[in-house]
Amino acid sequence: MFFDSIDFMAMTLALQQAKLSINSSPNPRVGCVIVKEKRIISCGYTKSPGGNHAEIDALLNAAAQGYDVYNSTVYITLEPCSYFGYTPPCTEALIKSGIKKVIIAINDPNPLVSGKGVAQLISAGISVKQGLMQKEAYEINIGFFSRMQRGIPWVRMKIASSLDNKTSLYNNSSQWITSKESRNDSHIWRARSCAILTGIGTVLKDNPRLNVRSIKTSHQPYRIVIDSYLRIDPFFRVLKGGGSCIFTATDLPMKRKILEDLGHEVIVLPNNLGKVDLQAVIIELGKRKINELHIEAGYQLNTALILEGCVDELLLYISPILIGEAYNMFTLPPHYSLDKKIKLKFHEIQKIGPDIRILARF
Amino acid sequence: MFFDSIDFMAMTLALQQAKLSINSSPNPRVGCVIVKEKRIISCGYTKSPGGNHAEIDALLNAAAQGYDVYNSTVYITLEPCSYFGYTPPCTEALIKSGIKKVIIAINDPNPLVSGKGVAQLISAGISVKQGLMQKEAYEINIGFFSRMQRGIPWVRMKIASSLDNKTSLYNNSSQWITSKESRNDSHIWRARSCAILTGIGTVLKDNPRLNVRSIKTSHQPYRIVIDSYLRIDPFFRVLKGGGSCIFTATDLPMKRKILEDLGHEVIVLPNNLGKVDLQAVIIELGKRKINELHIEAGYQLNTALILEGCVDELLLYISPILIGEAYNMFTLPPHYSLDKKIKLKFHEIQKIGPDIRILARF
Repeated sequence: MFFDSIDFMAMTLALQQAKLSINSSPNPRVGCVIVKEKRIISCGYTKSPGGNHAEIDALLNAAAQGYDVYNSTVYITLEPCSYFGYTPPCTEALIKSGIKKVIIAINDPNPLVSGKGVAQLISAGISVKQGLMQKEAYEINIGFFSRMQRGIPWVRMKIASSLDNKTSLYNNSSQWITSKESRNDSHIWRARSCAILTGIGTVLKDNPRLNVRSIKTSHQPYRIVIDSYLRIDPFFRVLKGGGSCIFTATDLPMKRKILEDLGHEVIVLPNNLGKVDLQAVIIELGKRKINELHIEAGYQLNTALILEGCVDELLLYISPILIGEAYNMFTLPPHYSLDKKIKLKFHEIQKIGPDIRILARF
Repeated sequence: MFFDSIDFMAMTLALQQAKLSINSSPNPRVGCVIVKEKRIISCGYTKSPGGNHAEIDALLNAAAQGYDVYNSTVYITLEPCSYFGYTPPCTEALIKSGIKKVIIAINDPNPLVSGKGVAQLISAGISVKQGLMQKEAYEINIGFFSRMQRGIPWVRMKIASSLDNKTSLYNNSSQWITSKESRNDSHIWRARSCAILTGIGTVLKDNPRLNVRSIKTSHQPYRIVIDSYLRIDPFFRVLKGGGSCIFTATDLPMKRKILEDLGHEVIVLPNNLGKVDLQAVIIELGKRKINELHIEAGYQLNTALILEGCVDELLLYISPILIGEAYNMFTLPPHYSLDKKIKLKFHEIQKIGPDIRILARF
């Protein structure tokens, strides 16, 4: 399957459009570009659930500009839907529009519908090519793919550390370890997540807001606190405005009622040790249609999540400083052989201001 | 001062030539390219001490190819020497050759001669331009600049660690932490160094050879061991073949004699605490014309060197693995405020096989 330079250019633009779909979750982020006689005549992206999908958005934009899409080529970052969801199937609209060709970056990961959109287009006489910039299209929807294929979110753990791997001083002196540039960058990752999870230790120590502030967004992620002994108090900032979710191992009905009356949810999910069952939390969040889960916690919860295999990637911001004895990133137990090491793969390395950002996958 | 694309091309080639000067130390690494009527007619680089400097090498290569350098432009990565050293002054040869113009990347850092080469050329009627690709030219001779300007070598500390900052297991299980690609890469850095320094702890534990093996080189760096209590034994591999240097705080005349008879040097440089005075070692190595000092030691010596301000840059190889509780890169004491942190700057980040290589400067 060969693609030409116009194909690459159009799909690159479609991927940029997909990145605008920041509020599409639980639906995937999708972008669409329409090309006619080698000219881009329209583009579009998927809106909030219930709003238009990328294909419909692009078709409407073309019409609004007075363009006839007949005989054109449509570039879509994900296979178009072939079924009624919140909206009618996109394949139907594409077929009706008279377009000639569809180029798709990657097929729908949902095993119940994957390939069906393509089959409908082909049986309507539309030429279909697949696999253009597939990797990039997968990355944009890594959380949606994870949930569709594994039933659980893509779990990203953010950690800011010094070059000697320390995350905070023993006296919890509250200065930032990384730069303003890194902190702003980390809000972009918060914004693309469906939910942000932290532990009660971090809530008690730092009283974080767990929202997106450094960049503009119309969507604030769902806030989740892991709190085995239900020590949280309604005045912590993470509970401001209601709508947060607390996972606990201890059912304290009175306290639960107070939190529920304030619009929060309290879910009791204990393991055998009387702590929150972290794997069960991840499964529960998958059921709640969380595509990307962003973790910003302290070393204790981070260590537990890694040891229980709950994490898919580390998002590390490393500042070029040495702090000396202080809290480590993790407190993983010692191994007696390097065969027991936990293996990752560096996915991406980038300079962010004076710091380095590393994305490493398990 | 403006330079054109031919200038950049020629100086880039001259810098590549300079990198071939791997055996020039204690002299600087210098490359030279001669351009006549927009064509490169010759190039050269500085040979081992006593051999030709880059300018002479390039002039001789031109003559050997039957080229007349009259009216040509000569690109040199470092200001030509204007005095008798092991060899006659290069300025003299350049003036005699009838060249028209000289373009120099960076001036000689030696305050006693800096600018004098340029002045001689100008007074002989040769047009001189300076500052083309100055930064690159500085990097190639960072050790020579350090020794000329500060009297001490440029000190580079190499560390291989896991992503959680561990350098070896508590049981010293001897597997490698980083990949073969990283280990090969680190031998390129060993090869460009004048000397490699380690501590007795590493000698006792790993019995390293401290030589260059993974790449071809005609030059092996000087081997140095820091050994406060003179615990070393002639059968360790670092002493193979003679010519190593042991810094100690304890003069044991019998043991010293055995080592000296085997062709090693033992230097007694104690501090007030009965340990080797590390700053004095660095000064002594500067006197011995060490331009670049490469350190491969364990966490104890590494920590001491950093705390005593002896290190200019860290060369870190980070493997994408988590090891858990094990030996850390350093054991710096705790700080009680982040104002006390040790600041560095990321100079370069690169992927090496599955690992990351970071160059961070103090």
